[in-house]
Amino acid sequence: MIINIPENSDFSIYNIPFGIFSTLDGSPRAGVAVGEYILDLAATAQLNVFDFDTAVFEKETLNDFISLGKEITKKVRRDVQTWLQDENSVLAGKPGLFIKQSEAQMHLPVRIGDYTDFYSSIEHATNVGKMFRDPENALLPNWKHIPVGYHGRASSIAVSGEPIHRPKGQTIPNGADKPVFGPTQRLDFELEMGFVTGKNTALGESIATDGAEDYIFGLVLFNDWSARDIQKWEYVPLGPFLAKNFASHISPWIVTLEALEPFKVPGPSQEPEVLPYLKYHGNKNYDVNLEVAITPEGSGEQTVCRSNFKYMYWNMAQQLAHHTVNGCNINIGDLYGSGTISGKDEGSYGSMLELAWMGTKPLKMKDGSERKFILDGDTVIMRGYAKKDGKRVGFGEVSAKVLPAIK
Amino acid sequence: MIINIPENSDFSIYNIPFGIFSTLDGSPRAGVAVGEYILDLAATAQLNVFDFDTAVFEKETLNDFISLGKEITKKVRRDVQTWLQDENSVLAGKPGLFIKQSEAQMHLPVRIGDYTDFYSSIEHATNVGKMFRDPENALLPNWKHIPVGYHGRASSIAVSGEPIHRPKGQTIPNGADKPVFGPTQRLDFELEMGFVTGKNTALGESIATDGAEDYIFGLVLFNDWSARDIQKWEYVPLGPFLAKNFASHISPWIVTLEALEPFKVPGPSQEPEVLPYLKYHGNKNYDVNLEVAITPEGSGEQTVCRSNFKYMYWNMAQQLAHHTVNGCNINIGDLYGSGTISGKDEGSYGSMLELAWMGTKPLKMKDGSERKFILDGDTVIMRGYAKKDGKRVGFGEVSAKVLPAIK
Repeated sequence: MIINIPENSDFSIYNIPFGIFSTLDGSPRAGVAVGEYILDLAATAQLNVFDFDTAVFEKETLNDFISLGKEITKKVRRDVQTWLQDENSVLAGKPGLFIKQSEAQMHLPVRIGDYTDFYSSIEHATNVGKMFRDPENALLPNWKHIPVGYHGRASSIAVSGEPIHRPKGQTIPNGADKPVFGPTQRLDFELEMGFVTGKNTALGESIATDGAEDYIFGLVLFNDWSARDIQKWEYVPLGPFLAKNFASHISPWIVTLEALEPFKVPGPSQEPEVLPYLKYHGNKNYDVNLEVAITPEGSGEQTVCRSNFKYMYWNMAQQLAHHTVNGCNINIGDLYGSGTISGKDEGSYGSMLELAWMGTKPLKMKDGSERKFILDGDTVIMRGYAKKDGKRVGFGEVSAKVLPAIK
Repeated sequence: MIINIPENSDFSIYNIPFGIFSTLDGSPRAGVAVGEYILDLAATAQLNVFDFDTAVFEKETLNDFISLGKEITKKVRRDVQTWLQDENSVLAGKPGLFIKQSEAQMHLPVRIGDYTDFYSSIEHATNVGKMFRDPENALLPNWKHIPVGYHGRASSIAVSGEPIHRPKGQTIPNGADKPVFGPTQRLDFELEMGFVTGKNTALGESIATDGAEDYIFGLVLFNDWSARDIQKWEYVPLGPFLAKNFASHISPWIVTLEALEPFKVPGPSQEPEVLPYLKYHGNKNYDVNLEVAITPEGSGEQTVCRSNFKYMYWNMAQQLAHHTVNGCNINIGDLYGSGTISGKDEGSYGSMLELAWMGTKPLKMKDGSERKFILDGDTVIMRGYAKKDGKRVGFGEVSAKVLPAIK
């Protein structure tokens, strides 16, 4: 191996995720994560090892690289894997190509045109239905027929590490007949994964479930911040708006669909039978271990949730097929959130709303304090990795600190 | 006048709207509409009459031009007005600078980053509430406190003239317990106006109502196509999705806020009192006459609606203040739809849903046929103009034909 990759690294030789980084002495450019390092693709391109226009590696986003198509992006990943494992490869004796991740700043990996958020975990939808509607009829009638989704705000999606301010907004106190204005009292995270599309469609075109994987470049961890009290007051009848669009965070490295191929697993059975355009063949779920931790200011990290991407009721192929069945067009760099990923156990719920069950079961932090929702000074960290037969492919983390509301 | 502007033209000397056009012998570039002509700004720039980098006029969108800031974009508009009225100006004797609109193709004027749709007409919200909820309590409790809005799909916004295919999707027949799939049976338009933002904000920043106009570059006509049967089945609990994102259309010329300044009028009084961040000073509504016509295939045009932008309950300054009060950032080129603009009279309702009152009052076309919703082959045309003291400032039209669903 050209460089040492620690055992149990998320960024093993089997991964090779793509991202955009910068260093003090250079502008944002493309790289791949390898162990604790970044292989600088713009610098690697100077060795004349790629047979396409490598200006794509010098852009501020990966959109142009991704638009070269899967044949090329897959070959780059395979080439890097080969070179890293060959002591005599083009990368040998060139330590300057490798930058310590701890010395680099990560940027949003793609220019996100449109962002859609789904609601595809049956456990999450059921929990929310139990809390806010009817415990006996928690799921709405359309839920098992439609991968329910809505459009979100692309402009406010930030990369891991950027702090956010507690958002302000309208809420209605219990029993009041008019709203009040102020910082949200119910700031929450939502543990999600997001996929990035790698191919455009034209208006009018639809994607079949069987071909959907050709359109998916890769995945990231996604924290869909939510202000529950704002959401409750605003969301009828047109859905969540200011309760969500103040910020969302993604992890900086896009793990390709190819890297996740070995971790495919069957999804839950879907009853009642779905409409023909939503049927699919083969395994379309992915066994990715997920966890969420909270670090209160000045305290230690407390894991609050362990979940898994394999729990999804609706898979990404179904989400894309549904999204485009009406002819809606998609673009390279669009982001599609899974919706909160909750499992069956209480410890696997993907939001504070569910974990603390609307504030009735506060969570204990390391410093003895309790959490019903997220407090100022808290850092929320999400991590994810797949592992099988000794091969580990991970996402690193998406982490962000909550600062007090702006005065 | 350097060129003849027909009386009653939307594109009078008082207007000077910006757009992107192309001709058979040239790539897309910036221009302003003047009477029946387009003044080619990229060609005009060759005369060295502008003191900024005029490469912005050779781009495929106006985003870079708009990003120069209002001081510059306002001066360009004023300069063009001056030159057009001066027989000895730089434009004199240069007919090549003017292209017949009938010989040009119009393009989307801006690269739309994010698109938000509001729901700000009280008459429309009341009509919808009467039809689908409770005639006695038509407005939801939050409606008079919040300029309700939701995020829409930016990728599928097209420019006037591009036909669309009838979208397909899931609907649930009356009394059925499971959905069916097929072309929508309830295709509708929504008469809206949209504003384009001309200035960025950073994440965390808010815009006050008093400063909101600095962030608005201009306005367009907006047809927010809707599939009512798909919407009814999908929209609970997260809002409209596939019922809307198959296509929306905008008019090609962005009429600047400055051109509309003379047409400001008071808005409706807002009771109950709104929260302090939504209060505003001065007139923020605009008196813009609007109409919708339907042209069935092979038949004459039938006007079906006459409304006015001045009916809006929530104005654009309030919409922007609300949208950013939680710190959501905005970008140059974002589009913000007003929501369907209905007036008090039945003839002023801005959608087929309301005009034909859920199909109970079909509209007569010129060819004797009836319309409850939009049929294949129909062209829907929206027009708008302001007029006062003999000065007319218009938007031209947004028009699109509906083709049958793709097999």
